[in-house]
Amino acid sequence: MTYVIGVDLGGTKTAAGVVAADGALVFTEQIPTLNRDGGEAILDATARLVQGLIQRAAGEGIDVGGVGIGSAGVIDAAEGTVVSATDAILGWSGTKLTAGLAQRLGFAGGDVRAVNDVHAHALGEAWLGAAAGSSSSLMVAFGTGVGGSFVLDGAPVLGHRFVGGHVGHFASPYAYHEGTALPCVCGHAGHVEAIASGPAIYESFLRFGGSPDVPDTRAVFALAHDGDAAGADSAAAIRAIGVGAAAAGQAVGGLINILDPETVVVSGGLADAGDLWWQPMERALREELLAPLADVPVLRATLGNTAAIVGAAKLVLK
Amino acid sequence: MTYVIGVDLGGTKTAAGVVAADGALVFTEQIPTLNRDGGEAILDATARLVQGLIQRAAGEGIDVGGVGIGSAGVIDAAEGTVVSATDAILGWSGTKLTAGLAQRLGFAGGDVRAVNDVHAHALGEAWLGAAAGSSSSLMVAFGTGVGGSFVLDGAPVLGHRFVGGHVGHFASPYAYHEGTALPCVCGHAGHVEAIASGPAIYESFLRFGGSPDVPDTRAVFALAHDGDAAGADSAAAIRAIGVGAAAAGQAVGGLINILDPETVVVSGGLADAGDLWWQPMERALREELLAPLADVPVLRATLGNTAAIVGAAKLVLK
Repeated sequence: MTYVIGVDLGGTKTAAGVVAADGALVFTEQIPTLNRDGGEAILDATARLVQGLIQRAAGEGIDVGGVGIGSAGVIDAAEGTVVSATDAILGWSGTKLTAGLAQRLGFAGGDVRAVNDVHAHALGEAWLGAAAGSSSSLMVAFGTGVGGSFVLDGAPVLGHRFVGGHVGHFASPYAYHEGTALPCVCGHAGHVEAIASGPAIYESFLRFGGSPDVPDTRAVFALAHDGDAAGADSAAAIRAIGVGAAAAGQAVGGLINILDPETVVVSGGLADAGDLWWQPMERALREELLAPLADVPVLRATLGNTAAIVGAAKLVLK
Repeated sequence: MTYVIGVDLGGTKTAAGVVAADGALVFTEQIPTLNRDGGEAILDATARLVQGLIQRAAGEGIDVGGVGIGSAGVIDAAEGTVVSATDAILGWSGTKLTAGLAQRLGFAGGDVRAVNDVHAHALGEAWLGAAAGSSSSLMVAFGTGVGGSFVLDGAPVLGHRFVGGHVGHFASPYAYHEGTALPCVCGHAGHVEAIASGPAIYESFLRFGGSPDVPDTRAVFALAHDGDAAGADSAAAIRAIGVGAAAAGQAVGGLINILDPETVVVSGGLADAGDLWWQPMERALREELLAPLADVPVLRATLGNTAAIVGAAKLVLK
């Protein structure tokens, strides 16, 4: 049986695992991403992580045939390079990701492949998770940011400039306050991410009169769970979550009308937050759907943190 | 050289042409679609149209090897059947389109293929028109309705239920009036089509105080061209076109962020209406784009009415 290593390289941590051809995750390890030290240091640390897994696998008689990486940033999957990245990983932009790892690990170039981590995540869910067995799936993740990927016939649609999947950056009627479009992290305004991300829900909470003593989105959800008992803050929390969830659902519903995926997978921290978010999200989603799409399955992601690892591994599994 | 016939079967007319393997359109003919007479009558008339073209081609020593059809309605491209259609073509839903034509024309089943007409249109532009040479393109048409198709590696992304491309049916912040979402022809409200289609521009004109004596969208454009000279009606016309164009551009811009096509093609009657629509459309479109997409080419469709004919032909050209 063929085994490969899948790597999920994010802004704060890098997780990697040995994955069998049937998708079984043999074991995983994790390190902090050296996000202040630049691309070469990150490559060195990632190569050490992978080398450790290869040795551990060898000890169990497992031979590793390649490395797939899902990485934060815009990744040129043809060249294996980091086209751009935010300051969450300083010096990552421009890094020769696959060539640098292949050289450090002694692999041939073709045995090391990389895509953006959201695409790896979606590919993992399409292969082994909520969308397993579907010929096409749309995965949308709502958390600190909003991202997604359309997986068609077993391959994520990466886009011509590898920018595809930025589903958080289109106009949302919800992303307005008193007639003014809410600013978006992309530099524009009025986008889905500006109202539907976790931090956006916290901003809505404050805008709706919630107390600034409430520290973060997690606390907003806790307040909403408490319900009426806790008064004005709970009301603001419930409203902020409801608006964010409705904006999320409306956006995904519109995308379903455009892409008509066999299966829809919703992922990310907000999808894991329970019915308080999921119910208004799915209600708004189904309100958007054209009649022939009324029965499209909308499923919660099932693989959690391992989705991007197995999805990345799939890149190099023949 | 291989020749095939491409058919563009719309609600009011059916046009067909003999197409060479290199895309050359040898000759075309056109008949009214028997849109009140039911599926079998339409198949009979279409088969006669195609048979006439085959005979005319034979007279010039041209042998026709297959028939591709782009048809109004939701078309199951695998089965070659009409899944659903509006009342614009009565009795079209349920018609065995490719089998019915193959039988009438004496072709083998595999030599007759069909897709929805918007997908055929986009495939034509991707093959020979504005997006020729691009590995991926997004075509969006703004006219009586709003439709589109994402063409990837030479094939339109049809969707799992063949409903893909309904780009008019997602939420637009512009599709509101005094806080209420404008009704959309799909039965929902607040969609792009409800503010950006030709008829929607006419409705906006009336809503903005334009005179009901102005008969249609074409007349609204004529008033807008006259500029200030014609007073309040011209102002309402300019405003209605501007809002519709901005909603169109904002929608296409958001889709570009999601799909990252190499080339974008804008088509339909509104795209042909000149700078009055195109300039605010493109301005709004570029305002939405993520930085790495800033230079995406946004081109006017070039093939006009022949796009769907050649695109349909491409379905059966080997």
